[in-house]
Amino acid sequence: MNIVIIGAEAAGMSAAAKARRSAKDATITVFEQSQVVSFGACGLPYFVGGFFDQPSYMAERSVEQFQASGIDLRTGHQVLKIDTSTQQVRVKELATGQEFSQPYDKLMIATGASVVRPPIKGLDLANVHFVKTMDDGLKLRQLAEQSDINDVVVIGAGYIGLEMVEALHKQGKRVRLVELGERVLSESFDTEVSEAIQAELLRHDVDVHLGEMVQALQGDDKVATVVTNQGQYNADLVIVATGVRPTTEFVADTGIERLANGAIVIDAQGRTSLPNVYAAGDCATVWHRISQQAVYIPLATTANKIGRIIGENLAGASRAFAGTLGSAAVKVMDVEAGRTGISTKEAEQLGLHTKTVFIRDKNTTNYVPWQQDIAVKLIYEADSKVIVGGQLVGGAGAVLRVDTLAAAIHSGMTTEDLGMLDLCYAPPFARTWDALNVAGNVAK
Amino acid sequence: MNIVIIGAEAAGMSAAAKARRSAKDATITVFEQSQVVSFGACGLPYFVGGFFDQPSYMAERSVEQFQASGIDLRTGHQVLKIDTSTQQVRVKELATGQEFSQPYDKLMIATGASVVRPPIKGLDLANVHFVKTMDDGLKLRQLAEQSDINDVVVIGAGYIGLEMVEALHKQGKRVRLVELGERVLSESFDTEVSEAIQAELLRHDVDVHLGEMVQALQGDDKVATVVTNQGQYNADLVIVATGVRPTTEFVADTGIERLANGAIVIDAQGRTSLPNVYAAGDCATVWHRISQQAVYIPLATTANKIGRIIGENLAGASRAFAGTLGSAAVKVMDVEAGRTGISTKEAEQLGLHTKTVFIRDKNTTNYVPWQQDIAVKLIYEADSKVIVGGQLVGGAGAVLRVDTLAAAIHSGMTTEDLGMLDLCYAPPFARTWDALNVAGNVAK
Repeated sequence: MNIVIIGAEAAGMSAAAKARRSAKDATITVFEQSQVVSFGACGLPYFVGGFFDQPSYMAERSVEQFQASGIDLRTGHQVLKIDTSTQQVRVKELATGQEFSQPYDKLMIATGASVVRPPIKGLDLANVHFVKTMDDGLKLRQLAEQSDINDVVVIGAGYIGLEMVEALHKQGKRVRLVELGERVLSESFDTEVSEAIQAELLRHDVDVHLGEMVQALQGDDKVATVVTNQGQYNADLVIVATGVRPTTEFVADTGIERLANGAIVIDAQGRTSLPNVYAAGDCATVWHRISQQAVYIPLATTANKIGRIIGENLAGASRAFAGTLGSAAVKVMDVEAGRTGISTKEAEQLGLHTKTVFIRDKNTTNYVPWQQDIAVKLIYEADSKVIVGGQLVGGAGAVLRVDTLAAAIHSGMTTEDLGMLDLCYAPPFARTWDALNVAGNVAK
Repeated sequence: MNIVIIGAEAAGMSAAAKARRSAKDATITVFEQSQVVSFGACGLPYFVGGFFDQPSYMAERSVEQFQASGIDLRTGHQVLKIDTSTQQVRVKELATGQEFSQPYDKLMIATGASVVRPPIKGLDLANVHFVKTMDDGLKLRQLAEQSDINDVVVIGAGYIGLEMVEALHKQGKRVRLVELGERVLSESFDTEVSEAIQAELLRHDVDVHLGEMVQALQGDDKVATVVTNQGQYNADLVIVATGVRPTTEFVADTGIERLANGAIVIDAQGRTSLPNVYAAGDCATVWHRISQQAVYIPLATTANKIGRIIGENLAGASRAFAGTLGSAAVKVMDVEAGRTGISTKEAEQLGLHTKTVFIRDKNTTNYVPWQQDIAVKLIYEADSKVIVGGQLVGGAGAVLRVDTLAAAIHSGMTTEDLGMLDLCYAPPFARTWDALNVAGNVAK
């Protein structure tokens, strides 16, 4: 059997590794356009911020390790098109320009996503960077360590934007954050969490500009000024973190079902609308356990999980993913924030009749000096009290408590169940009624 | 309606407060032998260790606060006996010696537990202390701060014993721990966790004596020497932490159903075998969700939860507790340990056909300098793969991950469910496959 996988990041390599263990006799070929495999872009802000020094940490495994395991991994190979009638992919070796066709019995598309280039003039000036590739990371780390780089403007207040704010702040820069929306993390978090993070940024002297549109970057060779609809700001370095878009243009002619943004629609088993073609990762949708829809939530965790499941299915299984909860987390300076299930906005979009509860509590007893504030928000069905979403923000342990909510939401627990759930207690870790219990009990 | 509650610690006061809110017209009388109410002994090690300075932190609410809320709280009142035929309790006011009878429509026994006095000679010497009351805490804090107190021997390696080791170590003492059993925390944790904690104690130069029996404490007035079956050790201070026993002697003549250790057996609604008599807290059993038995696991968390439920039931409801998981946690120096569900030993005692998996992992990515080791143990049914127990030990976040297992076990999740559960990821908090996912996926 010929298994072909396009793309060697999280989803593709998880699938390849699992398929290799599951189908001993199959030929597994992976085509990757770049020279880097199994790369986790989520490490970039921490590398740029100097939290660690070895760029190799950001690649889970090397090309050699994959090849040694019996996977025919070919870097520098771009897949140009898929012919579903003959079950072949057309491949170009980038170094030589040579093209060839490769047959497949089972195909997986795992081409990831590309950065969105926002409609801003001057994006090609020097010292303007996206945050996506290993190369971006190496250049940004160098700039972050230059003493003549002082004023940094970060455009976009999503996860990567906020993490880059922290990274550059840690490197001693004056950081300005410009976000088009009215609050940070507006895509995934409710207002209470956004506000807590905004307060934390201000507390660390980050200039936060919300509801402001960047129109142009100006400078002779290097960027020098950021021009918005509300002002002009000095900038020695500009970081553009305005999101990603699925890399799926090359399959447009196959008639494969895609969302409006280009994400390939898959079912719980990872199957696309084309026979014998699977997809996963940042190029594809994911089945949402709560909304029961195919949604676009590009996260490394889901890419790995669905990748692994597709690996089994490429080898003949019919395993299904139980569904994403959209669980995600971010640290901004000393504040943690995490979310799982659906947000208030998503509940409204789905037309669900939900209620919410928001409480402020502490992460530990008064007995230990490391006690910090945490806040919990629950979103639950008004009638059944089944919890459909949860968010925490605050000090240590806020995010790990979201994992408990993830297990609760996955299982269909009610607020009452959560209120009485037997959670661990000892003075250094929680109060006797953990904040999650309290939130469950306060919900009416 | 007359509601009478005996005992004003966690269970009793939770019930009183909830009954007060639920039954506006009821008379609620609480008799408490001591002068301290709503006291949490779990804070004592942290007070003795100097983690905090205000002893008042250890009482959730004051006598005055309870009385102001409309609860007739009478401290210094001992209940001598219960007459179930006339539904009266016989009460003695300790200051005056006066006795009187108080009728009840609904009665709750929440008398807690008393320390076990082990068969050791010399327990009454000065500088020998149990760790139970506010008074114990005040005396121990004073001793801990005396410069002539250098050698401390802690007897008993349960939760309180270990926390006292940490407390006295933090106060700069030379600490020796003597435990009769072959390992620390042998009642609640599996061997892997005990060993990790023992290693942590040794790393901090605590002398750990396992499988050793203390026979006598010797000294003129103050304790000076601890004599065991294996040696003699200098001791300026001895801490006895050999467990507790339910304070239920006064109900022996009522024929109420009790376990061999004296714990009053209750059902999920908190009802005892006597009509209109409830019990909860350290004097009573608790319904175990996994073993489906009434078990004795005296913990503040469960006391609060069942107390609250009984509060509703005293007021006329019929609410049932979903059951304990025996979730518990402890911090020892820089190591966290937590457990939920049943242990390997408990699974054997129940005759369950279980398997286990134990993995060593990291709590975060390599991207952050605060990465630490954590280890996960799962106990699951061999056939169904339903998880029935879990334990974690290691660095930051070990215990909060146990809460996620608690939610998973509460809901009957399988190892496969856990392997694919959508847990939060960001580099500072977890790896893309969290240690819990890994444990779930490794389980066969």
